[in-house]
Amino acid sequence: MPNKAKTIEDLGEFGFIRSITSGCINDTKEVVQGIGDDCAVLGPFGERVLLVTADLLVENVHFILDRIPPEHIGEKSIAVNLSDIAAMGGQPRHAIVSIAIPHLFPARVLNGIYDGIKSACNNYGVNILGGDTSSSPGGLFINVTAIGEAARDKVVYRHGARVGDKIYVVGMLGESIAGLKIIKGEISADTAQWPSLIAAHTRPRPKVAEGKIIGDSGLASAMIDISDGIVADLGHICEESGVGAEIREDFLPVSEDLLALGQGYNLDVAEYALMGGEDYALLYTVAPEDADQLEKLLKKQADISPAFIGRITSDPRIRCVRPDGKERILGKRGFDHFAQ
Amino acid sequence: MPNKAKTIEDLGEFGFIRSITSGCINDTKEVVQGIGDDCAVLGPFGERVLLVTADLLVENVHFILDRIPPEHIGEKSIAVNLSDIAAMGGQPRHAIVSIAIPHLFPARVLNGIYDGIKSACNNYGVNILGGDTSSSPGGLFINVTAIGEAARDKVVYRHGARVGDKIYVVGMLGESIAGLKIIKGEISADTAQWPSLIAAHTRPRPKVAEGKIIGDSGLASAMIDISDGIVADLGHICEESGVGAEIREDFLPVSEDLLALGQGYNLDVAEYALMGGEDYALLYTVAPEDADQLEKLLKKQADISPAFIGRITSDPRIRCVRPDGKERILGKRGFDHFAQ
Repeated sequence: MPNKAKTIEDLGEFGFIRSITSGCINDTKEVVQGIGDDCAVLGPFGERVLLVTADLLVENVHFILDRIPPEHIGEKSIAVNLSDIAAMGGQPRHAIVSIAIPHLFPARVLNGIYDGIKSACNNYGVNILGGDTSSSPGGLFINVTAIGEAARDKVVYRHGARVGDKIYVVGMLGESIAGLKIIKGEISADTAQWPSLIAAHTRPRPKVAEGKIIGDSGLASAMIDISDGIVADLGHICEESGVGAEIREDFLPVSEDLLALGQGYNLDVAEYALMGGEDYALLYTVAPEDADQLEKLLKKQADISPAFIGRITSDPRIRCVRPDGKERILGKRGFDHFAQ
Repeated sequence: MPNKAKTIEDLGEFGFIRSITSGCINDTKEVVQGIGDDCAVLGPFGERVLLVTADLLVENVHFILDRIPPEHIGEKSIAVNLSDIAAMGGQPRHAIVSIAIPHLFPARVLNGIYDGIKSACNNYGVNILGGDTSSSPGGLFINVTAIGEAARDKVVYRHGARVGDKIYVVGMLGESIAGLKIIKGEISADTAQWPSLIAAHTRPRPKVAEGKIIGDSGLASAMIDISDGIVADLGHICEESGVGAEIREDFLPVSEDLLALGQGYNLDVAEYALMGGEDYALLYTVAPEDADQLEKLLKKQADISPAFIGRITSDPRIRCVRPDGKERILGKRGFDHFAQ
């Protein structure tokens, strides 16, 4: 390989994705949505559409084998995909699991991973339809492609946010990154003392029921799952919708446990909530006149109180108002797999 | 990891697959075929079904980066999936591409791979709908999940072979393994002298048009693509159909180039044809009374002459009759990713 070659790091993850998204559609028949949302959307097939998404979990990038039970790795490989289907308002239906396995990999660990995969699929009524198996010269790789379905007129996209819409989050922010830092020893807290934060990282619960309520209501204007951090993911909604956003730092939903950890270890909890990835919360936007109705539906049908965090603006920036009233402009940062 | 743990090698690839295929279906609605064929089959959606398959290409397992142009790696990642859809008689429609990329990977090589992916998709009218991107601490990994479609009553499965059916192969056998051995220097032939064998390995052509003719005809009783070697793949048909087979070694379709290589380097060409993987030919079975009609259709519509190689038997073994009339019993060997 030439030494002077421009590398994948120079492009960055999102630069790379942009560079490959042209020329991807060769036959528009039954392609409602290609690259550019949480799922691709195919159909309609009768009154329904199919949702398709994929997520890759890589050893030592997404998980460290001896720091997380194999069952949780398996569960997570399914959960992260179901979160993408939830973010479109869909019902997950099928999974296709490809796995590359190092030589001499213990069958016990592999069985644990599959137990987790099957358990997660079973919990959500998802079928495992197949996949592929290979040896791996470099660590464990798991790719899951998930297929879901939704009523054709109930799918919620990233591109529908309108100026003045209210922004809500379902689920807590910043817990997963805090759990990861405890697991990695970057925060010198005892893992046994913070089970909810550890679980937020190792056993994220995809918000499938909540996503379906939001989709079925027909009220939300846009939705996304928060996997790369709220700034990055709200950024996707703003970019696709041609708008900006103003959010209130003190409105961000943060758990009691994360607040306690923050106090105990002098952490900037707001930074965790804004920038931390892998929360698998949902973020939706809704016209002001529909906001209360949707809140009530979530409360009634799932006993969930979504957190109002701000509004969509015509100013294309993403601004965050701090408790002291000062504003800061947030970039579209978030997790970049190829950032140095 | 415990030293005494039973490893993935102890299970073997197919043992592992068997161990994970129980408990995979949680909701049978619209699942026509789960694990156990070239593709899963979903539907029906109106008069159609969807076909879903996945294949993983791993650096230094499936390809060596500096011995094959990046464009061909990309093409092949699509082609191997389209071959699975062809084996069901389907029309490929969509691909979802997940890729794990080492740090400092040259953008030039990555762009070449994507050029190949797009070129193959373009050739077959296939859309790239999305996927996932990750860094990789251990080599390049490409997983492609492909979605195709077929008329609901035209899908050809592995399980339909009946005693007395004739067995045919579309495409040549043994060329890919010969090409690979030349590329790896295991046969000390000049790569430039054997372009068709090299191409059989690096640029396999999925038999999409042929598979569709066979499917649309409604005449074939079973079909599979030959990716693990004819013995292994005919073995899958026999196992799923509860039958055996007798094939004639001298009927196996072998190219002039492979015969010439075999003579020049004193190779057992029949062994290549029987055991070599990655041919991406199609094998189909057909009732004797329908065989001629299907042969004629392939000749007329695709100018292809399928090779008659033997018959399905009630004897559950796979027997190969050699030119001297002697018989040998073939196991279900073929490529096992975890064989020592």
